[in-house]
Amino acid sequence: MDNQFTRLFEVVRAKKPLVHHITNYVTVNDCANITLAIGASPIMADAIEEAREIAAISSAVVLNMGTLNSRTAHSMIEAGKSANQHGIPVVFDPVGAGASTFRNDTALLLLDQVRLSVIRGNISEIRFISGLSAHTKGVDAAAVDADSESKQIAASLAKKLECVVAITGKADTVSDGERTVTIANGHQALSSITGTGCMCSSLIGSFCGAVPTAQFAGTVAALLSMGIAGEIAHEKAGQLGNGHFRIAMMDAISQMSGATVEKRGIVNEY
Amino acid sequence: MDNQFTRLFEVVRAKKPLVHHITNYVTVNDCANITLAIGASPIMADAIEEAREIAAISSAVVLNMGTLNSRTAHSMIEAGKSANQHGIPVVFDPVGAGASTFRNDTALLLLDQVRLSVIRGNISEIRFISGLSAHTKGVDAAAVDADSESKQIAASLAKKLECVVAITGKADTVSDGERTVTIANGHQALSSITGTGCMCSSLIGSFCGAVPTAQFAGTVAALLSMGIAGEIAHEKAGQLGNGHFRIAMMDAISQMSGATVEKRGIVNEY
Amino acid sequence: MDNQFTRLFEVVRAKKPLVHHITNYVTVNDCANITLAIGASPIMADAIEEAREIAAISSAVVLNMGTLNSRTAHSMIEAGKSANQHGIPVVFDPVGAGASTFRNDTALLLLDQVRLSVIRGNISEIRFISGLSAHTKGVDAAAVDADSESKQIAASLAKKLECVVAITGKADTVSDGERTVTIANGHQALSSITGTGCMCSSLIGSFCGAVPTAQFAGTVAALLSMGIAGEIAHEKAGQLGNGHFRIAMMDAISQMSGATVEKRGIVNEY
Repeated sequence: MDNQFTRLFEVVRAKKPLVHHITNYVTVNDCANITLAIGASPIMADAIEEAREIAAISSAVVLNMGTLNSRTAHSMIEAGKSANQHGIPVVFDPVGAGASTFRNDTALLLLDQVRLSVIRGNISEIRFISGLSAHTKGVDAAAVDADSESKQIAASLAKKLECVVAITGKADTVSDGERTVTIANGHQALSSITGTGCMCSSLIGSFCGAVPTAQFAGTVAALLSMGIAGEIAHEKAGQLGNGHFRIAMMDAISQMSGATVEKRGIVNEY
Repeated sequence: MDNQFTRLFEVVRAKKPLVHHITNYVTVNDCANITLAIGASPIMADAIEEAREIAAISSAVVLNMGTLNSRTAHSMIEAGKSANQHGIPVVFDPVGAGASTFRNDTALLLLDQVRLSVIRGNISEIRFISGLSAHTKGVDAAAVDADSESKQIAASLAKKLECVVAITGKADTVSDGERTVTIANGHQALSSITGTGCMCSSLIGSFCGAVPTAQFAGTVAALLSMGIAGEIAHEKAGQLGNGHFRIAMMDAISQMSGATVEKRGIVNEY
Repeated sequence: MDNQFTRLFEVVRAKKPLVHHITNYVTVNDCANITLAIGASPIMADAIEEAREIAAISSAVVLNMGTLNSRTAHSMIEAGKSANQHGIPVVFDPVGAGASTFRNDTALLLLDQVRLSVIRGNISEIRFISGLSAHTKGVDAAAVDADSESKQIAASLAKKLECVVAITGKADTVSDGERTVTIANGHQALSSITGTGCMCSSLIGSFCGAVPTAQFAGTVAALLSMGIAGEIAHEKAGQLGNGHFRIAMMDAISQMSGATVEKRGIVNEY
């Protein structure tokens, strides 16, 4: 692994990249706090009047469909186009893709109009994005193994869209179409609190904003960070309950180092 | 109580019912986390374009007027109608009813258009819904005893609307028009953090989504869970301050069992 | 300081003033909880249909541009005008002023239409409000010393607008145009969590709502409370990480007393 994560952590904390989020109001506070905890700087701004302008001054743009409406859908597309024009990476989190016609249409419109750097979702959402049938049950339900299906879907979608695709679940899969890896870190308690998926997308935005040329490594660093934070939080606070587990997870991200990620990370390459 | 709460807890955790919320952006994260903590699965989606569709695939719908606007008011009514068509329970939390003409009009329109399963509010809000004069001071202010007035209002409104009515405060009152009970669990520290009322409504949605035929028992189970969680949280963290109390409350819900509810619950029937 | 903070704390906790917020969805939960923690009562309501009415029944109005959109911009102006008509103090938090044309235009429109009691922002935002060039990088980035520039800007803007101006950062500056003070309390960890600025504005609204005639002292009390809470939280939980620090900060506000503020507060007058 040649210390690439150590370097990524150093850069994100030195550069403090500004990460523009257009995201849902359920987990937005967690997204802002985790962006700060990893060393980046969050800005949340969803008005159509400023979406292009804020995207243009940012280092990364995170578009999350969690509580989508027609106003924010429009802003997402404008922010994405603006980022594209300025060479700024765009992370797309298609929350609930497959669950409603509106989400499906918006996701497809966004795929058509905006060139994405990274797509992160659960298996249902990524399956929908890939044009396969999805069985979405809420946004927290997918607990599918990073089995051969995930690897094939991630690799093929990454190749098709020329971006990084991350499928998170019990294990995580990341592919850029050339390389495909799975990440075995994490803890099932992460699925008992809301927002861990959204927070992964914020971490991806933070790393990709810091080092735009390392989108694959940045995505892997983000998912390793969350997975290891879940393990540490469970060790420290798992027996206390969901409230303390969530706080301990945020603690762990704020104290995460590249060295810890190099040491504890379990990445299997194919 | 013949172990009915033990069975309700078993079912909610086995079924993981999807609970569709159209709710306020103040406490929505707490609502999502408490829905997960009790064992159900939250989905928050307020766009008019998908309100009917998401309601239709859910096990319960929770409509909360906390930060109402004309867009979400419309979505609430459509989600409620869709739930009615599909036989899905609807929980209504008329936050701030009585505090503004807009809230009053929306509450009355919703009562007119949607058949409700459960209404939960503080005494001011329920008094308004009952057509009486309300003295609303914010959304956290009502600390009225579950006195005879509450019991009469709850029973009469429940009978009129053919639903369960829950009035929460220092003590809680629940009535389905036939039976009326009061719940003596809880701790005043619950009124020093935001969202305990909203979270009660999410717990009601979780239990009613799991066992639609047990709306009265599900409502009582939800209020007992919050009340007992408040007691446990105060024992564990009350002296630390509001921040830790809130975390300990979420811990307690995630570790709550039907057996604890049977053992510690103080339910007085009339 | 003749125990003025002790008296302010007593009044806010005795009166429990209703503080109407039109604020962003990122930190709104923190704002509600800190308003409760200091002893006041929050109400969040941003619909244009009720903005005037809710403002009129409140003791203070807090307008925060964090996740501004055209709908809430309109509501802010109406709430501000209604507060003006009823003699209710208005606290303005121009989040991100200088970062986009939309925010700039809205801030200027609000300054034109609404008479403000207190403006609180970081140095970039207040510099923009003062008509100087701003270098905004997100909303958490300004860590400028309360140097002579801050004092001059605060004093001159306060005089121009006939209100209290607070510039928060590594040190805080407060001026009403006549008196200018700096506050040396605080801890840099406060800048590693989202919302400490917004929460300061909620605290200012709470104190000014309790004692409308003491807007300068109320603003100083609010900033001292947050600064000292940051110090206490860092002592208690700083080594645990960002999650626990944030919880300990909320604990500290809920347990803050006027006596602690008198004792630990470091206020330098000029």
